[in-house]
Amino acid sequence: MIKVALDAMGGDLGITASIHGLDYYLSKSANLKVFFNIFGNKKQIEDSISKCKNISSDIYEIFETGDKKINSNDKPSVAIRKGKGSSMFDAISHVANEKSNVVVSSGNTGAYMALSKMLLGTIEEIERPALVCVMPNIKGKSVMLDLGANVDCSSSKLIQFALMGQAVARVLLKINNPSVGLLNIGTERSKGTNALEEAFDFLSGSDINFIGFIEGVDITKGTADVIVTDGFSGNISLKTMEGTIRYLTSLAQAELKSSILGKIGYLFGRNIVKSIKNAIDPRNHNGAPLVGLQKIAVKSHGNSDHIGFSNAISAAVNLAESDFVNNIKEAISIIGIDKSNENNNKKR
Amino acid sequence: MIKVALDAMGGDLGITASIHGLDYYLSKSANLKVFFNIFGNKKQIEDSISKCKNISSDIYEIFETGDKKINSNDKPSVAIRKGKGSSMFDAISHVANEKSNVVVSSGNTGAYMALSKMLLGTIEEIERPALVCVMPNIKGKSVMLDLGANVDCSSSKLIQFALMGQAVARVLLKINNPSVGLLNIGTERSKGTNALEEAFDFLSGSDINFIGFIEGVDITKGTADVIVTDGFSGNISLKTMEGTIRYLTSLAQAELKSSILGKIGYLFGRNIVKSIKNAIDPRNHNGAPLVGLQKIAVKSHGNSDHIGFSNAISAAVNLAESDFVNNIKEAISIIGIDKSNENNNKKR
Repeated sequence: MIKVALDAMGGDLGITASIHGLDYYLSKSANLKVFFNIFGNKKQIEDSISKCKNISSDIYEIFETGDKKINSNDKPSVAIRKGKGSSMFDAISHVANEKSNVVVSSGNTGAYMALSKMLLGTIEEIERPALVCVMPNIKGKSVMLDLGANVDCSSSKLIQFALMGQAVARVLLKINNPSVGLLNIGTERSKGTNALEEAFDFLSGSDINFIGFIEGVDITKGTADVIVTDGFSGNISLKTMEGTIRYLTSLAQAELKSSILGKIGYLFGRNIVKSIKNAIDPRNHNGAPLVGLQKIAVKSHGNSDHIGFSNAISAAVNLAESDFVNNIKEAISIIGIDKSNENNNKKR
Repeated sequence: MIKVALDAMGGDLGITASIHGLDYYLSKSANLKVFFNIFGNKKQIEDSISKCKNISSDIYEIFETGDKKINSNDKPSVAIRKGKGSSMFDAISHVANEKSNVVVSSGNTGAYMALSKMLLGTIEEIERPALVCVMPNIKGKSVMLDLGANVDCSSSKLIQFALMGQAVARVLLKINNPSVGLLNIGTERSKGTNALEEAFDFLSGSDINFIGFIEGVDITKGTADVIVTDGFSGNISLKTMEGTIRYLTSLAQAELKSSILGKIGYLFGRNIVKSIKNAIDPRNHNGAPLVGLQKIAVKSHGNSDHIGFSNAISAAVNLAESDFVNNIKEAISIIGIDKSNENNNKKR
């Protein structure tokens, strides 16, 4: 049986997203082999569960952490020093102590990363875990990392991301020999930074299916199965994409409703507009694993609602069922990572 | 009379984009006070002009540079050492020698930046020029910089971008006191890099209408009139946006044509789909000024076609008419920039 530790208090919506997200997950999933260890304010959680239809009393246990929580603007160092007893800290500890198989939280990303690294430990060859997401593109799906966990961008980090991304694409996208592209501002080797050039040279000489530098436009083209970038650019890119999707759908809806022809068109096309929105809805791709840890931690978007949170739970269950960490370890050990340490201290 | 120096050989499409772009510009514009100095292969340019309807012989002169051109993969240092006599080099020199008022090129961005800096010089307080573009958002338009000219991201560069961006928004968007946002991976002061924190502190204490950190989703929301970021993230973000727009429009067209209801909807809504595509078409926003130079240089997108190039010509003419450089100088001198040099050598 998979046991999921839920941080019920994280994210902008807290319990509204987490408990109703659990309810929504259970309404969609017939997976009876999952048990939930829920961390947070017991009274509020019980109140919330009493309004839900699908959360039966035999599939969960509540662990009281009162109102102690890590705030969205707390620095990672503060979370490490003062986080003990908070819903996030205790949920991660539950996995560290092997009482749960996977943890899910919508809380402060930097704190979640720091606490997961401290409590769960990283795989030997990995300096710091990375945040990975699955995204849709014209051809299908790809994985992209890092998405904000590592703002620096040394060549060794980029090489580690490439190895981890390749392993994630194998596990989550079931692609045997995924292609890996390095995000840059041009495709010629001379473009970009020293760290990118070094990573380019290392990956070109490795066994990885490396297709070279790719640009921002390639992300949605599906040029590569794995898109590797530093956490700063990755985060900006992902959120730019979210913003552009929102902008275009609001533009389309406003335009379609602004004239009679448009209204008629909308009547006939609305289900299609809905299906497109559905395909690209960030909530449907919510649940990004922190990769490189000795156990599994899944990050749910800070502003996700119950639908987004339910998808994060679903991703967590799938990862726990797939023997994710051993797969990542194996993928890394096959390719080897030690050479990357030559370039350890280079920055962009 | 405005005199425009055209690099006819730059970009993926060369003369096909530049000369037919000039023809398209003239077909749309009744501005008779513009003269074009065209640099490139004279024979090819004359052949191309002979097929155009709107390029009368009294509004241009051709300067023969044969087949000498700067390639898309030439390093900036190569362009500086060996570029003399190429269409790009000679077109920029024409502005340097005050024979033209503004130069337009679709050529290699790094080379264009380096040659413009060397031949035209920068404004005293500015280390290196930035690449700025105007982009649409839900509320209207904003300017964003840097878009790839500067891959490093020291705090002093970011502060200079903020000052220049504010000046550009005044000139191009006619906004009196434009709001300035600093692109980051979160809105709290503790997020991001040291350089960003330093720039945040400086701008918070300045007379600039600084609204703090903004995220990728804010770009299309119109949260700030001026979006400031380093050239690496800016380039990735802009191209992610382009890719997302292409992805969504192709998805919408495919979906709308895949069912009978969708086809009917498309029949009624197609003009609206067209008007949306038009509003967000990157070609219609083509023509990014290099800001911080003593003269005006406009960068056209490397893969722009004749429509894109015509818009770059249009932007160049508008900038030349607006006394752009003096406006930028004045804006910078009012605010002052010397304090930023304290942080000169900090990197992300």
